Amino acid sequence: MRTVDIIHKKRDGGVLSSEEIAFLIEGYTKGTIPDYQMSAWAMAVFFNGMTARETADLTLAMARSGDQADLSSIPGVKVDKHSTGGVGDTTTLILAPLVAAAGIPVAKMSGRGLGHTGGTIDKLEAIPGFQVERTKEQFLEQVNDIGVAVVGQSGNMTPADKKLYGLRDVTATIESVPLIASSIMSKKIASGADAIVLDVKTGRGAFMKSLEASVELAQAMVAIGTEVGRETVAVITNMDEPLGPSIGNSLEVLEAIETLNGHGPTELTELCIELAGHMVQLGGQSADAEAGKAQVRQLLQSGAALDKLRQLIRAQGGDASVVDAPSKLPQAPYRVAVPAPASGYVASIDAESLGVTAMLLGAGRATKEDTIDLAVGLKLTKRVGDAVQAGEPLAELYMNHQKPEETQQMLNRTISAFAIQPEPVAKPKLIYAVVTSRGVQHFK
Amino acid sequence: MRTVDIIHKKRDGGVLSSEEIAFLIEGYTKGTIPDYQMSAWAMAVFFNGMTARETADLTLAMARSGDQADLSSIPGVKVDKHSTGGVGDTTTLILAPLVAAAGIPVAKMSGRGLGHTGGTIDKLEAIPGFQVERTKEQFLEQVNDIGVAVVGQSGNMTPADKKLYGLRDVTATIESVPLIASSIMSKKIASGADAIVLDVKTGRGAFMKSLEASVELAQAMVAIGTEVGRETVAVITNMDEPLGPSIGNSLEVLEAIETLNGHGPTELTELCIELAGHMVQLGGQSADAEAGKAQVRQLLQSGAALDKLRQLIRAQGGDASVVDAPSKLPQAPYRVAVPAPASGYVASIDAESLGVTAMLLGAGRATKEDTIDLAVGLKLTKRVGDAVQAGEPLAELYMNHQKPEETQQMLNRTISAFAIQPEPVAKPKLIYAVVTSRGVQHFK
Repeated sequence: MRTVDIIHKKRDGGVLSSEEIAFLIEGYTKGTIPDYQMSAWAMAVFFNGMTARETADLTLAMARSGDQADLSSIPGVKVDKHSTGGVGDTTTLILAPLVAAAGIPVAKMSGRGLGHTGGTIDKLEAIPGFQVERTKEQFLEQVNDIGVAVVGQSGNMTPADKKLYGLRDVTATIESVPLIASSIMSKKIASGADAIVLDVKTGRGAFMKSLEASVELAQAMVAIGTEVGRETVAVITNMDEPLGPSIGNSLEVLEAIETLNGHGPTELTELCIELAGHMVQLGGQSADAEAGKAQVRQLLQSGAALDKLRQLIRAQGGDASVVDAPSKLPQAPYRVAVPAPASGYVASIDAESLGVTAMLLGAGRATKEDTIDLAVGLKLTKRVGDAVQAGEPLAELYMNHQKPEETQQMLNRTISAFAIQPEPVAKPKLIYAVVTSRGVQHFK
Repeated sequence: MRTVDIIHKKRDGGVLSSEEIAFLIEGYTKGTIPDYQMSAWAMAVFFNGMTARETADLTLAMARSGDQADLSSIPGVKVDKHSTGGVGDTTTLILAPLVAAAGIPVAKMSGRGLGHTGGTIDKLEAIPGFQVERTKEQFLEQVNDIGVAVVGQSGNMTPADKKLYGLRDVTATIESVPLIASSIMSKKIASGADAIVLDVKTGRGAFMKSLEASVELAQAMVAIGTEVGRETVAVITNMDEPLGPSIGNSLEVLEAIETLNGHGPTELTELCIELAGHMVQLGGQSADAEAGKAQVRQLLQSGAALDKLRQLIRAQGGDASVVDAPSKLPQAPYRVAVPAPASGYVASIDAESLGVTAMLLGAGRATKEDTIDLAVGLKLTKRVGDAVQAGEPLAELYMNHQKPEETQQMLNRTISAFAIQPEPVAKPKLIYAVVTSRGVQHFK
């Protein structure tokens, strides 16, 4: 088998065999196939696409390219969740204890990553004492014991995906649905998921800017799930404004606690119930998603979900009293209100731009070497559709300094993320559609 | 300027600016742009093509990437010729003295290259004493003195093209008309050509298998010539059988002498007159191509063309008496007739396969390190359309050994290159079309 022939075949619109795809990914992982052949192949895929079978083969080949989690010692259906980017997304912190409380085993390995805020693992470290490093045995034991564990990813998972993603980033081959879909799904499969619920963000702050493109990506991922025997459901959700008001590590932990307590922000709560409902159903704990949603609503109201968070924190060495005394979370020394520049209605909020502001405040990493300030970030006080008076706060900045020039810069950045217009604005829809192997259900 | 943005633009069907193309080629030549970005870009070009302006910019950028010949000290229009591959093509050896005799200055730098037989430079070395290495000053002086010089290419010409071609070869991005056209034209422009005549081969033995594809390539090259102010004419010629009967270095020199003597093979002579006619016209020595052809026919008949070959050989230290005593050329010790396996008519001759046979006999290089046996090769005795009796020779092998097994292998290879059928076969057309900046003229 020659790589150039495989590229040629894809270039001319051919369908690659499972063997050809395995040859490509194994060779690329080992380094026997060079970057310049993979990038030409990726560009050919950009133009000619891949069939569902090819995409599933690529996903499995990448999932097998490195370490794979073995969750077989945990009984039950392991349902994983993934959000395709987005800003101010605290869902993992909420969903892990919530679905665990519903009897779904949650064996979550999470990365730190780069971005606007830290990853889930960084956020959990805002809880005093919380340990994210666990041996494989401790990890499995904890899931079997209390039903939930969230630890840092160790080992070398999906190295083929990491290498290919890095290459695509510099060769203008990111925007290919089968390549995006296989990248996401390969990580979930390597992590040992039996079933997968996807939160596909759409809109300005998301990777997929249009609903059509988001549905296409969701369908590709659901098709992979079907091909590889991992039932997959995708929820398409709005990212024309940040999901929750908080962007920052401590701030998001606080928001998660409030949500598990039944007093979270409306949109975040609604989305968590939607996603958890599907997870509970896929995990076989409810007859359908509606029944799953009813079940998790009950768990939020009864305090069972919050109690599961306490158990999780305790099991991983953290101070569970933080749940009842959130002031024990890292606190930013300075808060600065962001005044509205005009009266009117909030027409849009640029989530992407606010994410960058949070990162500039210190909440996220621009490079792997950066350290995160867990306390800093920002919290929106207005959402799209809200009426606002000039001078009234749009948001609050949580800062670790009082340098006037930088503060002004952050204020300006935040103000310009808001579009305010004189005419009233309708509240945006949160959930657009649900994609399953049976089809697309658009929400009214 | 970022390379990834340039790839992105081409991927999405954009037209690159002259600056973007120059940035790409300069960066790639210097090594600041890596192979993996160039291959992704080349694949994007494969799919989305390039405008005439972009193709011309790419051509000039590659022409300028290394050394460029300065022929300004030679008065007159320097007309260069290029054949797009093909087998048994002796035209350069014939055209150089022929058009020089018509008053066109011929300052030819030629490579050795890889392939079925040696390059023009290797063939000339079959002439005893012929020196292909000349200083730049000697080279220019010789052209100004006798009107013709053919020397080995020195220096580092079009390194961007060499690098890009090597990359395209392993990334399935060869078959792109603007990339092929710019590759050929960049070399001609770097060699100092003021005007260019192209012999674009079409058919089984050629790079372009269909007439349509050959015309498209010819039009792209003529368009580049127009854009960069180098008038270009392309002749589309048949490569469904070898052009001349001889494939091998000495054998082709002999064939060139016979052709310049007015006793060459019909097709080779006809094509040389066609190409030379256009060269004479582009060089301003005749009013039109027809008048140019009449002029060169006269130079073949009068012996003036052959005499120019004698001058060329003498000027470069060779033994010009070879022209009248061709037995002084290297002679293969063994000749083996290739018997026809059946009676009938020759339906086709696989030029490509015969070229490989000649290389296996020792006439060409498979790798740069191989040495060439100038004496060996093969000579066809039958052409497409000829009647043949079983056992009658189809060709003769010129060999440097008598090893029975290898000889049998070469016989088998040669026999299987001929397709013989019971029904009569029409003689194929030699010249299909001529492409100029004014359009395509198809030959009846």
